[in-house]
Amino acid sequence: MTVGVMGSAGGKLTADVRRRVRRLGVGIAKRGYVLITGACPGLPHEAVKGAKGAGGIVVGVSPALNFEEHVKKYHSPTRGYDAIIYTGSGLMGREIENIRSCDVVIFAGGRSGTLGEFAIAYDEAKVIGVLKSTGGITEHLGTIIDMVNKETGAFVCYDDDPERLLNQLEEIYRDRIFPRHVRIMKAGSGPDGRLQS
Amino acid sequence: MTVGVMGSAGGKLTADVRRRVRRLGVGIAKRGYVLITGACPGLPHEAVKGAKGAGGIVVGVSPALNFEEHVKKYHSPTRGYDAIIYTGSGLMGREIENIRSCDVVIFAGGRSGTLGEFAIAYDEAKVIGVLKSTGGITEHLGTIIDMVNKETGAFVCYDDDPERLLNQLEEIYRDRIFPRHVRIMKAGSGPDGRLQS
Amino acid sequence: MTVGVMGSAGGKLTADVRRRVRRLGVGIAKRGYVLITGACPGLPHEAVKGAKGAGGIVVGVSPALNFEEHVKKYHSPTRGYDAIIYTGSGLMGREIENIRSCDVVIFAGGRSGTLGEFAIAYDEAKVIGVLKSTGGITEHLGTIIDMVNKETGAFVCYDDDPERLLNQLEEIYRDRIFPRHVRIMKAGSGPDGRLQS
Amino acid sequence: MTVGVMGSAGGKLTADVRRRVRRLGVGIAKRGYVLITGACPGLPHEAVKGAKGAGGIVVGVSPALNFEEHVKKYHSPTRGYDAIIYTGSGLMGREIENIRSCDVVIFAGGRSGTLGEFAIAYDEAKVIGVLKSTGGITEHLGTIIDMVNKETGAFVCYDDDPERLLNQLEEIYRDRIFPRHVRIMKAGSGPDGRLQS
Repeated sequence: MTVGVMGSAGGKLTADVRRRVRRLGVGIAKRGYVLITGACPGLPHEAVKGAKGAGGIVVGVSPALNFEEHVKKYHSPTRGYDAIIYTGSGLMGREIENIRSCDVVIFAGGRSGTLGEFAIAYDEAKVIGVLKSTGGITEHLGTIIDMVNKETGAFVCYDDDPERLLNQLEEIYRDRIFPRHVRIMKAGSGPDGRLQS
Repeated sequence: MTVGVMGSAGGKLTADVRRRVRRLGVGIAKRGYVLITGACPGLPHEAVKGAKGAGGIVVGVSPALNFEEHVKKYHSPTRGYDAIIYTGSGLMGREIENIRSCDVVIFAGGRSGTLGEFAIAYDEAKVIGVLKSTGGITEHLGTIIDMVNKETGAFVCYDDDPERLLNQLEEIYRDRIFPRHVRIMKAGSGPDGRLQS
Repeated sequence: MTVGVMGSAGGKLTADVRRRVRRLGVGIAKRGYVLITGACPGLPHEAVKGAKGAGGIVVGVSPALNFEEHVKKYHSPTRGYDAIIYTGSGLMGREIENIRSCDVVIFAGGRSGTLGEFAIAYDEAKVIGVLKSTGGITEHLGTIIDMVNKETGAFVCYDDDPERLLNQLEEIYRDRIFPRHVRIMKAGSGPDGRLQS
Repeated sequence: MTVGVMGSAGGKLTADVRRRVRRLGVGIAKRGYVLITGACPGLPHEAVKGAKGAGGIVVGVSPALNFEEHVKKYHSPTRGYDAIIYTGSGLMGREIENIRSCDVVIFAGGRSGTLGEFAIAYDEAKVIGVLKSTGGITEHLGTIIDMVNKETGAFVCYDDDPERLLNQLEEIYRDRIFPRHVRIMKAGSGPDGRLQS
């Protein structure tokens, strides 16, 4: 399972929220999942520290065109990532790819960027976990879902504890995503694909 | 000036809303502006019909990889566009490029997709026009801006009349965007660019 | 029909080559086609000047994320374009989208960038026109096609005269591309698409 | 160091070439590097098998929008990847991102797709390793570089033995890429980046 962590890349981050997001990263690694983030500073990078400290695999999806832009233009972190994918698509553009590439996506804190990411994930029918009591737009997601008033097939679960949130997501993955992937695989060409003509 | 029109690509569209969005398209064309949409059905396509009927130039930014996907996979319109750019980035991915390529962006109606587009436009500090009384998420944008609680540099204006909305956007373009472009041009290599080495 | 013009964005450009590429732009406009380029300087911009001078419609597909990058980072032209699509995908990345969005693609001059574009167009089975005697990699395309040794479905025609090259492309468009589009349209939802659910 | 492996995704693949590319994957993993491929079948997937069998980390950059397209539309492999990034950019589009995200890129065999990838890597001044005697377009790269006749800053080395090729690339990485990254890091905000405002 690949798990995305999205949320505040700036603004005020309390010690409690940082600590819980770091524990989220630890949990992702310990369960053998791969963490994917936008390779940005802030809360997602706390998850990276947690995951990497626990020996996990971490992939970053950068807004930059290359290492130089990543560091100089976006002031983004480089420590803790096994690979950084340089999309060149900018802050919001890369989030599309980020969200698409995760089996489940977790939100914590955040403002307008995170709202855009949530809207994308919701519209693309993703399995979404909300880490409650992390402030910002995340506190309003229930209200916003009501305003949107559209059944997209997205599935949203909430918890303020990282481990319990991962438990919930794990269960949904087993019940909904994994069986779907197995069905698709059966209709496909096997786990090693098929040579192009 | 390039003007984007975003909003409902489905759901119920009342005759009044359709009519006003079509008049928006007519206004964009008559003022000599270029209309850019996501080349989707629904309200944006009403704007296309209006603009093209008035002799305007229209560019679509498609989610599809090519003409065939555009028609068969996305059931998207082909009539009225001078050029369709095939991004292959999917429904939300192409919106990023769409929003970036417009000087001003107008919203009408819409649900989760439109919310994502609005969040992107707001986060990327665009000049945004909201066509009021068009239903859907557009009615809640004021509340959502309050929730986001972040000054991004975006500028949002509202009107339920297409012509008055275009008047407002025109004024902002003249006061904010055009002078900025002139400053950038002066620091650049002239309107014909500079040969690569 | 949308016609792409690709080729040298730098290096030495002789007066004869510039003149023929500009005539190419004039021909594209006079025949009522839309010109699409990478919004770069050099030969493609000569085509833009020709097309715009003859009253044509011109769309640029920029490597930049926005107007500022377009002008300051890429030193790219801004005059003559009805719309510039900001892909943010960098010099080569935007070419993919550029090539995909053209019905036919014309090559003139060029070096490694143009070679990449040609390989993409060839691999994606496009209809390709080569403006002969324009120097650079274009002179070697026949040899390179032999080396590649793969039938991709691409169709390549050659002429050193812009009008005769357009005549050839026009004919191929009528015989191959247009009938294919009609077949796709018949299997689709009509020229105005279908509302999303 | 992230190492890309590009090359034939189809056509005839001899047992010798398959074996050497698999050894390449083993070598990449044993040296502690991360393998990045286009998540395609053929030679790149041989490298994946080698790397994963030796306990390495593997990231795939898919042409597809999601798992379903990856399996059904592109018949691409899913086994052996720690994460698959779904670009939605199609066969050539995703290669841009793939190439950008690798410190060094290795080519083996291949036809028009591989030629496009090579042209992109060459134009973007990458460090390139060519696994000799693997057939296809790879045999002609020296001639093509002469035709291109442009100093882009790319560095190309050749060997028919995977280990010796990796030795060469390792040395170039140490001498050219790593010191450059250190310089960039010193001008940046540190390995953990800087919070956005």
